[in-house]
Amino acid sequence: MNAEILAVGTELLMGQIANTNAQYISKKLNDIGVNVYYHSVVGDNPIRLKDSLLAALKRSDLVVMTGGLGPTQDDITKETVSEVLGKKLVLHEESLERIKTFFNRINRKMTDNNVKQAYLPEGCIVVENNNGTAPGCIVENNGKIVVMLPGPPPEMIPMLDDTVIPYLREKSEYRIVSKYLRVFGIGESQLEELIMDLIDKQERVTIATYAKDGQVTVRLTAKSKKEDEGLCEILPLQNEIASRLKDALYSTENEELEFVASKMLLDNNITIATAESCTGG
Amino acid sequence: MNAEILAVGTELLMGQIANTNAQYISKKLNDIGVNVYYHSVVGDNPIRLKDSLLAALKRSDLVVMTGGLGPTQDDITKETVSEVLGKKLVLHEESLERIKTFFNRINRKMTDNNVKQAYLPEGCIVVENNNGTAPGCIVENNGKIVVMLPGPPPEMIPMLDDTVIPYLREKSEYRIVSKYLRVFGIGESQLEELIMDLIDKQERVTIATYAKDGQVTVRLTAKSKKEDEGLCEILPLQNEIASRLKDALYSTENEELEFVASKMLLDNNITIATAESCTGG
Repeated sequence: MNAEILAVGTELLMGQIANTNAQYISKKLNDIGVNVYYHSVVGDNPIRLKDSLLAALKRSDLVVMTGGLGPTQDDITKETVSEVLGKKLVLHEESLERIKTFFNRINRKMTDNNVKQAYLPEGCIVVENNNGTAPGCIVENNGKIVVMLPGPPPEMIPMLDDTVIPYLREKSEYRIVSKYLRVFGIGESQLEELIMDLIDKQERVTIATYAKDGQVTVRLTAKSKKEDEGLCEILPLQNEIASRLKDALYSTENEELEFVASKMLLDNNITIATAESCTGG
Repeated sequence: MNAEILAVGTELLMGQIANTNAQYISKKLNDIGVNVYYHSVVGDNPIRLKDSLLAALKRSDLVVMTGGLGPTQDDITKETVSEVLGKKLVLHEESLERIKTFFNRINRKMTDNNVKQAYLPEGCIVVENNNGTAPGCIVENNGKIVVMLPGPPPEMIPMLDDTVIPYLREKSEYRIVSKYLRVFGIGESQLEELIMDLIDKQERVTIATYAKDGQVTVRLTAKSKKEDEGLCEILPLQNEIASRLKDALYSTENEELEFVASKMLLDNNITIATAESCTGG
């Protein structure tokens, strides 16, 4: 199953906030064996949203959308999805009651425009929201799945974790498992040269490198029916790379350099002192 | 000029990092009057990268790409752009010298695969990188502009600020200016109802609302040749909205609630005390 994460919201395109939802959702989908091939962000514009959704449905089996489920005029996600999939929006009584209860609980006045949040595509699976007014939903259509979740992370995250991921886990028989080898002291280009032959013949276990903050990470990834099977596939390759990297490899468990260094100091009863001078603090 | 920000990197799709570059670039482009209509993220896959680039060029005048300029096999941004735009990659001697100097300075061995980083599309404008090995570039082609920058923010940001933004500023005659009204105590739906008539007849100054952390922000945006002209267009609308929001409006200058509250306490010589009990800390 290939997925695309489509975020809706002009505030993202204006740079007011970062799309942290895409990162979170990607991690969770990868954990259950779903490949994420695209992230997209589009504004609260009906034409561009419709085009983006059509493009996503063409190239992806699963489209996870965030944002645009609010009560205001520029919240158009459900309307657009319904139009594209040919579904009617129908009032979900239970969601309407939950919205009314929510407003009573926070002692605020519910307005008419909140009612539209209780309209959902006919036949969808409702994803309850315990931290806001907008319910989400899962729509299955012609072999595709479209998931709609609110934008605010405190609402989106529990809905994804509690309802969407379990639903998808049922549908996916694979797990993706990765090991991260952390390297310091050689550059990415030099590292790649060291393991070029392994990169060239990679098959069931894929190898990727990336550089960040003066360090390099080697990611080894396997896709299998069970997590421990995946780890067993990775281990021989991990050991071969470790033997070549020698001291440049400081962790096979994705630990931070500071943590490993501190641990070594403690284990060896070594102290360090720092002194500052000339910079005036 | 409409822009799309296209980030290249499988680590983004696996959720290892968030696409903070897109947020930064969006803010900077908006500041100089360039509309950002799409963000896209694609992996280090030649076919999907080519498709994403073709789609971006079809719908956007300016495509700003980040990532995929490294020395390793899966860094394919320049190769793909050159292929799509029909440009040759040629060795830029000055960039090669800068890469050699960089490796000398950090006392690391330069490897053969770093040489490919000095190959750039023929006729491009080179964007120097003072914090890494990969130069970026700006390519003009058939009325479109493609900008390629490295992924790591400490490299990308200065290159964008020092070279790309000045270049684009020359080409764009408009400035976008926004005022952010910060609101607490009423919900987004209730606020929208209060100003619905203004939203309906918005023209030169656009109005958008969004909710975050129990507060609401109203964004008023104008596009004009000079920043102060834009502010003058916004001011009457800002005042009208303020008169309707009354005490629920706590800042017209995008200040945080905690800051405004603290200032009011200090100005009025009021102290507050907190006591904790029963939670065991």
